Amino acid sequence: MSKWILTEREFNIKNMGNYESLMYQGNGYMGIRNSFEEKYVKSNRATVINGVFNTPSGEVPEIAVLPDTTNFDISIDGYDFSLLIGELNGYKREIDLTNGESRREVLWTTPDGKNVSLKFNRIVSDVKKHIFAQKVAVEAQDDMEIVFLSGIDGKVTNSGVSHFGVTALKHYGDKTIGWTSQTLQSGVKVGVCSAFSCNINTPFEIVTDRRGIYFKFTLNLKKGESTVIEKISSYATSRDFEYTKKEIENVSDDCFNYLSEAKKMGYDALLSESADSWEAFWKENGININAENDLYERALNFSLYHLKIMASGRDNRLGIGAKALSGEGYKGHSFWDTEIFILPFYIFNAPQSARKLLEYRYRLLETARKKAEKYGFLGAMYPWESAWLDDGETCPEFGDIDIETGERRRLPMSTDEVHIGADIVYGVWLYFMATNDVDFMEKCGYEIILLTALFWTSKVTKRNGRYEILNVIGPDEYKEGVDNNAYTNYMAHFNMELALDFIETGDEKIKQKLNEKYDLADIKNRILSVKDKLYLPVADENGIIPQFDGFSDLKPIDISGYRESSELFRILSDYPFEEINNMQVCKQADNVMLFYTLKDRFSNEEIKKNFEYYEARTLHDSSLSMCMHSVVASYMGDKLMAEKLYRDCCVVDYGEENNNSSAGIHAAAVGGIWIATVMGFCGLRVNDNGLHINPALPDGIKGIDFPFKYKNSSYRVKVTADNCNIERILGKAEKIILNGETKTV
Amino acid sequence: MSKWILTEREFNIKNMGNYESLMYQGNGYMGIRNSFEEKYVKSNRATVINGVFNTPSGEVPEIAVLPDTTNFDISIDGYDFSLLIGELNGYKREIDLTNGESRREVLWTTPDGKNVSLKFNRIVSDVKKHIFAQKVAVEAQDDMEIVFLSGIDGKVTNSGVSHFGVTALKHYGDKTIGWTSQTLQSGVKVGVCSAFSCNINTPFEIVTDRRGIYFKFTLNLKKGESTVIEKISSYATSRDFEYTKKEIENVSDDCFNYLSEAKKMGYDALLSESADSWEAFWKENGININAENDLYERALNFSLYHLKIMASGRDNRLGIGAKALSGEGYKGHSFWDTEIFILPFYIFNAPQSARKLLEYRYRLLETARKKAEKYGFLGAMYPWESAWLDDGETCPEFGDIDIETGERRRLPMSTDEVHIGADIVYGVWLYFMATNDVDFMEKCGYEIILLTALFWTSKVTKRNGRYEILNVIGPDEYKEGVDNNAYTNYMAHFNMELALDFIETGDEKIKQKLNEKYDLADIKNRILSVKDKLYLPVADENGIIPQFDGFSDLKPIDISGYRESSELFRILSDYPFEEINNMQVCKQADNVMLFYTLKDRFSNEEIKKNFEYYEARTLHDSSLSMCMHSVVASYMGDKLMAEKLYRDCCVVDYGEENNNSSAGIHAAAVGGIWIATVMGFCGLRVNDNGLHINPALPDGIKGIDFPFKYKNSSYRVKVTADNCNIERILGKAEKIILNGETKTV
Repeated sequence: MSKWILTEREFNIKNMGNYESLMYQGNGYMGIRNSFEEKYVKSNRATVINGVFNTPSGEVPEIAVLPDTTNFDISIDGYDFSLLIGELNGYKREIDLTNGESRREVLWTTPDGKNVSLKFNRIVSDVKKHIFAQKVAVEAQDDMEIVFLSGIDGKVTNSGVSHFGVTALKHYGDKTIGWTSQTLQSGVKVGVCSAFSCNINTPFEIVTDRRGIYFKFTLNLKKGESTVIEKISSYATSRDFEYTKKEIENVSDDCFNYLSEAKKMGYDALLSESADSWEAFWKENGININAENDLYERALNFSLYHLKIMASGRDNRLGIGAKALSGEGYKGHSFWDTEIFILPFYIFNAPQSARKLLEYRYRLLETARKKAEKYGFLGAMYPWESAWLDDGETCPEFGDIDIETGERRRLPMSTDEVHIGADIVYGVWLYFMATNDVDFMEKCGYEIILLTALFWTSKVTKRNGRYEILNVIGPDEYKEGVDNNAYTNYMAHFNMELALDFIETGDEKIKQKLNEKYDLADIKNRILSVKDKLYLPVADENGIIPQFDGFSDLKPIDISGYRESSELFRILSDYPFEEINNMQVCKQADNVMLFYTLKDRFSNEEIKKNFEYYEARTLHDSSLSMCMHSVVASYMGDKLMAEKLYRDCCVVDYGEENNNSSAGIHAAAVGGIWIATVMGFCGLRVNDNGLHINPALPDGIKGIDFPFKYKNSSYRVKVTADNCNIERILGKAEKIILNGETKTV
Repeated sequence: MSKWILTEREFNIKNMGNYESLMYQGNGYMGIRNSFEEKYVKSNRATVINGVFNTPSGEVPEIAVLPDTTNFDISIDGYDFSLLIGELNGYKREIDLTNGESRREVLWTTPDGKNVSLKFNRIVSDVKKHIFAQKVAVEAQDDMEIVFLSGIDGKVTNSGVSHFGVTALKHYGDKTIGWTSQTLQSGVKVGVCSAFSCNINTPFEIVTDRRGIYFKFTLNLKKGESTVIEKISSYATSRDFEYTKKEIENVSDDCFNYLSEAKKMGYDALLSESADSWEAFWKENGININAENDLYERALNFSLYHLKIMASGRDNRLGIGAKALSGEGYKGHSFWDTEIFILPFYIFNAPQSARKLLEYRYRLLETARKKAEKYGFLGAMYPWESAWLDDGETCPEFGDIDIETGERRRLPMSTDEVHIGADIVYGVWLYFMATNDVDFMEKCGYEIILLTALFWTSKVTKRNGRYEILNVIGPDEYKEGVDNNAYTNYMAHFNMELALDFIETGDEKIKQKLNEKYDLADIKNRILSVKDKLYLPVADENGIIPQFDGFSDLKPIDISGYRESSELFRILSDYPFEEINNMQVCKQADNVMLFYTLKDRFSNEEIKKNFEYYEARTLHDSSLSMCMHSVVASYMGDKLMAEKLYRDCCVVDYGEENNNSSAGIHAAAVGGIWIATVMGFCGLRVNDNGLHINPALPDGIKGIDFPFKYKNSSYRVKVTADNCNIERILGKAEKIILNGETKTV
């Protein structure tokens, strides 16, 4: 198996959804699931564009599934081509990570014995962000009539919910068709165009229905003859980045123009242009990992592929959905996943993209201020989930009606998972430490830090002669309504400390400017009165920092069975949630997360003891868990554990025997692979002292060669078991602390 | 082939849509397409309830596709049961017209060689109108694990448009689940419940998704063992007839109660109860036709089956959609099809149901008055298409954006197909002639007649010293914007004549009452000034009554090729519509229609000549055409022609080689079979003189034995080639004119 090719060697209908996600294609602007051209009941087609959200009546905003252009109904002598019927004599699908191309080859015999070879190639252009290109090649091994029906299919829904109203269909001539509509509530105009070309001159028909427009070609092929049809499609929306710079918004014309330009090039030239862009990406960001288990390099490339296609890189109105652009999962909402799991890759590889992501959070400040006000707090209370900038908090306050009780359960996430504010601040801090981007801090960063810190001063409760943070949910979502969650309290403290530090020692000019909007003296006083009295849980007599008040008093439970099972969330079918809430069991890293974000606050001894204690009680039922544990195990020097958990983290999406990704890839876990590799095994970290590299390769890994950017310089590092070589590629020399020793490289 | 069983002997995916329509089940309240329990890409599932309309943004109201309960995903040793995979060793599906039951038997071998027999039975109860019942029996011919997943699937749309908002799902216990939501615009609450029972005690799981709730059963069967699962489902809506009589509306509770009652009975008892109701129907309304070609009796029974299940019979807020309740085709709208093609069956078989249908038109009077006012006319201008009572005219004024020009074409139907007003009056008149229901006339009938007559007085244009009706569309829809369409002008005249007759000779008390609402003197004067000067096209020198001004000047065209082709609308792919508009070609009966509705106004000679002329120029591209031609051929005594067209009319939906009914059955053509049989071959007619019977059996038909109701009496008539015997079953003796001779029977 090549490290550059993700292959599906055998067709199995059960894996359909999984491979649609794993092999989805995109370019930060749009994402297209790798659904087969021909239709299947179990297929879950989706094309989405980041930012195109719509709110169905009575529900929360969601990323709208857009009209499908991947479709090709192929009928051979009257039989609809399907891998489920006739005979399948050959099958392979792969996605080429070097250039983003998806290729499928099928040798098929129709139910009445006609043989045919079909090849399907497709790309989402990495250069022409609005373009999706396909090539379908059919070789007849018997005489046959082939009918192709392909077009723009707007009969799409998000799990049964349609987002588009009346649709205008258009035939432009020159085998080009168009589709325009707008989302029902948010009024986003969407245009889609497709153009066809066929190497055989053949008559065609246009077929339309209520929400779609199609071309129909009929060809008669003799044995040995073949045909190639190219379909180039374009997408445009009134939320396109282009319209932030342009006065006239004409979605359907622009969509048509994007297509016109692309169709002149044709599939092969579009592929080649896009492949150059991919080549540049790999050259700049590729990591080599020399390991006994070739899973690591495959998973790592898989991870980089997905990290690349999930972020816009230029549009600060967009976050990253928990399932990236791989479908409608999690409704396209952004969570803390971005800052904690995905942002580090961008900070150290594409800091300009990282800045856009943090600017998105800055642009959400108004939403966060309103949310704080709504709940009676000061400052900024960030939405637990967010979508379009003016969508507000997109995590619902109430869940669906409970099927047993008929009651609507209040969902505590939006009010209780308050750590997200400090997580965003952690992202800001990490970005600033790694880039020294003062301009960003001046325009966005400090304001985020100040207002989130102000929030914490109002969120605390005076009790037991100290300030406590009550009734929250920490990272471990199997525990609701807890008091003094260690992760939350420490992160809040960190958040306030950063704010105070800025107020006390920050640049006067910046402070002056901010003082025009906020009363910095008041914020300072509020922080001063709270920060040092904020309760920060410390180790008990056994050296264990309680995850929250009373964790050690909870009922112990033997979880070995669940840990051994490959099935996630099995515990939920054995115990009601209320009971799990009272058991010594964690869904995912919680205290262990803290050792990742605020490592310097804890001794190695503390970290080890607590890791051992909590990991044994953790089910890793969240895809966010393994990578954090692996990094922290690396910090501890427990290489065996670090590698074991790394392996688990590699197969969250990638695993062949895995089937958890039908609803979409796990964007955070994908980012976690990079984190565990570069920040874990290679020990890349920043703090107030500067940038550290502390490699600790596990035995199974002989060497890692990775790039990173720091301040304005680019580096490439070669780590082996007993050596670490840092080479500067671009920029001026900077201080780097290698294994505790400061060097200027 | 039995005349009582409609059978599909072989499975062919291409016929899927057609059989889903043909074999749809219903009871006037709801209709359920006969989609297979297991899912297919080409299937078009739909459950609809008459009256549950919703208007998508920017579109017209449509009958909403409701959550599906027909579904059963059956997995055998991991293979999803599908007729497309594995091996199909036996297949038969039939609908039993005697009791409305659908039965399917399948012998199937899984792709890995396990043999299984599956039987699927289902009914829509004819007694418990809210109940749909299913039975699935599986016999294992090898050891196997079977997983059933079945429930209430709300992931349904009308061609991609979803009509329901947030959904509440419910587990009631006792293997019963519920679904509640409401339509997005019209706010109709809909409740659906399903209950399961299985002859083998086995654990089950409940599975839910955003719009659905399901039960999952897993069973291990040894060779020879079998299992039977029953699923009883109920539907209720806030537009239910029950709520017109009841103060408290609680859709989900009522839905659950309907189910509770039904599930106590179980499938077999529900079937038996419903079968009794069907038996009574056939006893009362069955027709025996003794013909060489057994197609006739099969098609006739098919027709009666569908006529029975399409009308509510009790709810005067409901019309009959052009596709009845067989799906979303024509959006569930009512057209003139009801009065001209379907109502006659009801008038002569179930007059109380006929009255409800006419009361529906009465309740649309306000809509019709508003429409007249909108267009500057007097009186009532009936909507060309109608849905729920307050939906107004539901035929859109503008079509979709033209794919070539980008312009939105004005649709002339709602403004120009004005004959519908007179068609409704024809229905009123026919009903009154047949029933002598003075109460109806007093409460509804005369008002309809007066206001439509008033409309005509304002619709006419003074020209050439006479009144003309300009710019209309007659029944022949291949001709738009014509002047003095003979059908329209004659029907308008008939309409005005009826009104005048009532004003001049009607019951004084009724008139007095109506005079309180309308100025009868004014209406009378207006009619008097128009009626006799209304231009009624007369035969030209060749004896041909022009279908409209200038028909004979249009370009002649050889249409033999199109007539011989089995494909409909072929002419539209050869000529643009504008050109067809200027050619001597008719889509369907137009002048010939006139000889059906107003036979007495024309001599036999005239009818013959015109029939010959127009029929030769008619493509019968509309399903409304053949039956009218057949009836009129019977009137003319052209038995050969009458039988030939009867045969064509029988296969509009029923034909085995036919595939035109995917989108739904043709309700008018179904009514037309009854008309051609009873009013054509047997010559049952009413006019001012009374009720006539003039049998004229074609050579291929030896005898017809049919029932009818007249005034308050019920009759059964036995017609043979040389005899006609009329027997009174119920009621007092009435005068009947048999072959011109008045008898009291």
